[in-house]
Amino acid sequence: MSTYDDQSAVTILGLGPMGRALAGAFLDAGVRTTVWNRTPGRDRDLVARGAIGASTAAEAVAASPLTVVCVVNYDASDAILRQDDVTAALKSRTVVNLTADTPDRARDTAAWAAEHGISYLDGAIMTPTPSIGTPEAVFILSGPKDLHDRHRPVLSVLGGTHTHLGEDIGRAAAYDIALLDIFWTAMAGYAHALAVARAEGVTARELAPFAQGIGAILPPLFAEFAGDADDGSYSGELNPIASAASSMAHIVHASESHGIDASLMRVVEGLARRVIAEGHGTDGFVRVTDLLTRHAH
Amino acid sequence: MSTYDDQSAVTILGLGPMGRALAGAFLDAGVRTTVWNRTPGRDRDLVARGAIGASTAAEAVAASPLTVVCVVNYDASDAILRQDDVTAALKSRTVVNLTADTPDRARDTAAWAAEHGISYLDGAIMTPTPSIGTPEAVFILSGPKDLHDRHRPVLSVLGGTHTHLGEDIGRAAAYDIALLDIFWTAMAGYAHALAVARAEGVTARELAPFAQGIGAILPPLFAEFAGDADDGSYSGELNPIASAASSMAHIVHASESHGIDASLMRVVEGLARRVIAEGHGTDGFVRVTDLLTRHAH
Repeated sequence: MSTYDDQSAVTILGLGPMGRALAGAFLDAGVRTTVWNRTPGRDRDLVARGAIGASTAAEAVAASPLTVVCVVNYDASDAILRQDDVTAALKSRTVVNLTADTPDRARDTAAWAAEHGISYLDGAIMTPTPSIGTPEAVFILSGPKDLHDRHRPVLSVLGGTHTHLGEDIGRAAAYDIALLDIFWTAMAGYAHALAVARAEGVTARELAPFAQGIGAILPPLFAEFAGDADDGSYSGELNPIASAASSMAHIVHASESHGIDASLMRVVEGLARRVIAEGHGTDGFVRVTDLLTRHAH
Repeated sequence: MSTYDDQSAVTILGLGPMGRALAGAFLDAGVRTTVWNRTPGRDRDLVARGAIGASTAAEAVAASPLTVVCVVNYDASDAILRQDDVTAALKSRTVVNLTADTPDRARDTAAWAAEHGISYLDGAIMTPTPSIGTPEAVFILSGPKDLHDRHRPVLSVLGGTHTHLGEDIGRAAAYDIALLDIFWTAMAGYAHALAVARAEGVTARELAPFAQGIGAILPPLFAEFAGDADDGSYSGELNPIASAASSMAHIVHASESHGIDASLMRVVEGLARRVIAEGHGTDGFVRVTDLLTRHAH
């Protein structure tokens, strides 16, 4: 059986925490796994578990019909994939790029892949490293549907849900960017809240159970506000943006009274104030989405 | 039986959405409920359900041993409570102020209450209006423990959990500020994400199930990071702040490439970059809390 026809063989390029977790899940499932990392030595524990450690990226991609790339960004993945020997070795093979970057970079990479006879799927992993191999893992992918269908069996050993978002190669990156936008903004809010609490003599562990309660009310509100945003009906009956802005001003004031930078909440309050100034003070906060997209293209 | 001794009587000052929900829950539980709002006419449906509509705030507070205040902020609650006739009518009675504001304002109001022989608890409601009267409601209170114990039975008809955070009257407001900081920052992240998704041709309803997934991973991360923040051990092994900053840069770039203001994520990325510049690029993102509190007082 040629390597090329062996659908249960995979190459992982990039052995950061996520790349190692992916390789580990493939190994656990008995998939023949070849690994490579730009900085050597990151493959030691994986090789001990049965992985094949390739000495070059070209050798790595030649070993499997499917290469999964998971590096810091597309500058890093381009630097690996667009070397002549690597590009040549990838011809007629498939690359699934799980590296996070912008939709434009995914589209650019798809164009490069098409030019060199490489099959290409773009994707993103929406859950933390420990989720890999468990039902909690969330993978999103975009690109040719038949390609997704062909590689779905081997990718499914990574656990969790795998959603094909559409043929537009930029779609997974678009979701990824939007979801990371929520994630990192929320984490920044949490880090800031811990600072304010600390200045008030409240420990993070004391605040945490209540913070978890706030986290738990977000998902149903996200669903509700999604309907508002799509329909342009921003009901503020229960929570008008004008009273939200009042809360925001309290947060800014309480933070700054302790000498804590409140730039983040100042931006949030500024968005709310602009909506109010335009005469929509009784609408819900999500009207901010309209404000932000007014001049979008 | 005098009104004063009737522990199952309550007055609600302020009939916005939350004040009306509180009054409705007291009425549903058979508590004698007197209501008042600065703008008349907001009590009509409540009176139809059995509430006593007072024509002045002084008359309202005189009708019950316990007055619950729920207005937009402490400027509004001061404007009601610190009128001579209202202050006089409150003597030897209890005020529970569920109005949101800063810890300083709660402390200032406690001083005013003590000066006028008024018992005072400060509190906050950490769940949306529809939670009132259900097990989902979350109330936090601070101030004298014996006062909290005395009024707990009647307040418990509001449903959910009621946590006494301590005798320091500012404590409920401190938690409230910190928790609203998380909430509104996260909501702003969501509104922004919907704008970016929209510009990429992704509807809010398409994004919502994945956004809910992001919401669901926050509570356990909040618990984990609370330990890090209290212990000063910001492990970034699985997610170093340097790669977080790389994601943040993608979000800024993708937003601005569509003409969408990315000030919010620019602030978040700026905080991460400062941590990295100080040599902590391999630490976790929550080291931002230390950066923010370095000069706090």
